[in-house]
Amino acid sequence: MEKYVVSADRIQQMITELSQYGKNKDGGIDRSIGSKEDMQAREWLIVQCEKLGAKVRIDSIANIWAEINTASLEEKKNHRKPLTIGSHHDAVANGGKYDGAMGVILGLEVMRVIQENNIPLRHAYQVAMFTAEEPNPFNISTMGSRSVTGKITQEQLHQAESYVNHQKLEEAIQKVGGNINELEHCQLKKGDMSCFIECHIEQGKNLDRKQLSVATVKAITGIYREILTVHGEANHAGTTIMQDRKDALLAASEVALAVEKIIRSYERNDIVGTVGKFDILPNSVNIIPETAQFVMEIRIPQEDIKNEIVSRIAAELHKIEKARNLTIEREIFLDQSAVQMNEEIQKVLLQESAQYQKEEVQLVSMAGHDAVHMTDITKTAMLFVRSINGKSHCLEEYSRIEDIEVAGNVLLNTIIQLDQLLD
Amino acid sequence: MEKYVVSADRIQQMITELSQYGKNKDGGIDRSIGSKEDMQAREWLIVQCEKLGAKVRIDSIANIWAEINTASLEEKKNHRKPLTIGSHHDAVANGGKYDGAMGVILGLEVMRVIQENNIPLRHAYQVAMFTAEEPNPFNISTMGSRSVTGKITQEQLHQAESYVNHQKLEEAIQKVGGNINELEHCQLKKGDMSCFIECHIEQGKNLDRKQLSVATVKAITGIYREILTVHGEANHAGTTIMQDRKDALLAASEVALAVEKIIRSYERNDIVGTVGKFDILPNSVNIIPETAQFVMEIRIPQEDIKNEIVSRIAAELHKIEKARNLTIEREIFLDQSAVQMNEEIQKVLLQESAQYQKEEVQLVSMAGHDAVHMTDITKTAMLFVRSINGKSHCLEEYSRIEDIEVAGNVLLNTIIQLDQLLD
Repeated sequence: MEKYVVSADRIQQMITELSQYGKNKDGGIDRSIGSKEDMQAREWLIVQCEKLGAKVRIDSIANIWAEINTASLEEKKNHRKPLTIGSHHDAVANGGKYDGAMGVILGLEVMRVIQENNIPLRHAYQVAMFTAEEPNPFNISTMGSRSVTGKITQEQLHQAESYVNHQKLEEAIQKVGGNINELEHCQLKKGDMSCFIECHIEQGKNLDRKQLSVATVKAITGIYREILTVHGEANHAGTTIMQDRKDALLAASEVALAVEKIIRSYERNDIVGTVGKFDILPNSVNIIPETAQFVMEIRIPQEDIKNEIVSRIAAELHKIEKARNLTIEREIFLDQSAVQMNEEIQKVLLQESAQYQKEEVQLVSMAGHDAVHMTDITKTAMLFVRSINGKSHCLEEYSRIEDIEVAGNVLLNTIIQLDQLLD
Repeated sequence: MEKYVVSADRIQQMITELSQYGKNKDGGIDRSIGSKEDMQAREWLIVQCEKLGAKVRIDSIANIWAEINTASLEEKKNHRKPLTIGSHHDAVANGGKYDGAMGVILGLEVMRVIQENNIPLRHAYQVAMFTAEEPNPFNISTMGSRSVTGKITQEQLHQAESYVNHQKLEEAIQKVGGNINELEHCQLKKGDMSCFIECHIEQGKNLDRKQLSVATVKAITGIYREILTVHGEANHAGTTIMQDRKDALLAASEVALAVEKIIRSYERNDIVGTVGKFDILPNSVNIIPETAQFVMEIRIPQEDIKNEIVSRIAAELHKIEKARNLTIEREIFLDQSAVQMNEEIQKVLLQESAQYQKEEVQLVSMAGHDAVHMTDITKTAMLFVRSINGKSHCLEEYSRIEDIEVAGNVLLNTIIQLDQLLD
């Protein structure tokens, strides 16, 4: 079988061009849903797709879909549903230019090689450009992929409003060509595509430590989140002697450190725990903290160990409650299981990667991705690209063009292989 | 010498009447500077003073001064400057009805007994009712006593603005009869009064534990405050493995717990340490905290032990910085030494207290009071009254009328004694 290759120069040029939309004075990218910069980026993407002769469609949540090799009416019966490569084109505030954008651009470069070389495919080929994958002011991340997989209701979308400028989500979506009142029109069912592959920067240091270009993802981590509220007692910070205190901050500090200790005891790179949100009341210099409310997050690919961790933490909480004579309230608000990636596609990705690097690397994705939701409707896989120093969601986010080129070639030839393998 | 006594009934009635001004629906008191409730309370106080035949004066910071037995022009030369009892009449938001108010009311009851019995005094007698002693929305506490002792500038007062409703302090002071543009007119100098005694609820549990009514204050605690800023590194809470993290929250948690441990090691009721204000950035569920900023407060009556504590904390900070590979910035923003109370007056207060209770109690005041500033210009002392359960600044704040009556009698007879003792 003939080997085709992507062009590093074209990829580099596209990354540079797309990164102009939303570039702020520090060099970071601001491109949140419905912003002027988002609209400009979308226009640019649509122009690229049209130049490649793709049929472009904007669905009701404003995801952009570009398809080539679509079956004509007479071929329809034996023609196969699209092999799809996709990612997102939005960015966190002051984010980098690779997260999301790189995956979309590689999907387009694969399309370009297919078109320029008239590569014969039994399937249609499609690039998916998802709306609002990142955490955003509307508090709904992976918005596009959740919408197409029926995991979000029209009511949720109607209620969503930006906490930055109080814009309604409905208005933001309308600005970029969608219409949340027709949400059901964007929903996909099993069989609507033949596979989905998301290529994304690793956002961790595994590949960088090994100095390797790409890895396949075997699973996307489960995410477990609890809101904990320590109920202590407010009192005068001068007149209340130490042994009479019920200090909510000190109890919460012990909890945060206990979570860290328990998580670290596993000595595993695919188990992490974080307290990232933490507030105390009344938060006054001379009043003993009455309440501490914080979110504990655990990311882990295995349900059984997650349960073990949660019960070890519970035991620590009881000790702290007893020692400090206060109460700790717990509320689980997210308990998302790990999602396994399709093994058949992983195998092809690994075979193709073997052409460019000696070691096979399979990782657990410790971040959520649109791919999580796409597993509901199709065979789904992910390819990670080396992140220099593991940085993401920041100015310093960087992937070398040499590594991105490898990913492009792996994706291109995986699509060609899957065209034969998948029905 | 004849013994005079105060009336518990009258005291109780005055406490009840004054507590009507600002009583909210929960039963707490809202009476902050310049509010309608503050104005009503002040009117009521002035009426009480005038009924007692006192000469009432409102100074430029709106402190109320009520004086009796003022020297006539021909007596002036040999007549003595006023013996003064005073406290404040404002309250923290949702505060109690004893903090401040009780001290003012006892000053008035002493005045009433002097007037009704025509007790002959060589000195004038005066009640001081200070403006805005409590923490308030203008961020200037002990405002009245600081102003009369020259510890505040006109510029500071001009800049002060309520963080609740953006009212200018100038306007609030004007509403209650003051004028900050004439600040210098309210300033007192040494010799303007013969002594100052503040009677206040203890706000701690020492007297309640001993079931005793009153204590003298030997010193008012020193207060030391540092702002600490932990500079960690923000990163993705999923993709950053545990050993690569520089988590500012976890470092700050260790600091807060280290402060507690060091303070508790002294096992003393007059040494306390608190972290009451604590904020992290970016404060997001899925981002490792980059910055933690918090205020560490230490209250202690001895400078040498304070220095020892601060250097023990510094040693802990260095360990934490090293272990977590991050930096902790420190800024001292308050270093107020302890203030000793006048021994001569304390001796009289203790003698008089001995009539009502078997044990002499001398305490360190762990809260600041107007008395701190009054030491600059006159012989100053404080008398504490038992607080049930040590509660203050809240609805549950309570002192029994039996204990308040004891305090009233101690104050009355101390004033009569001091009239002879002081020149």
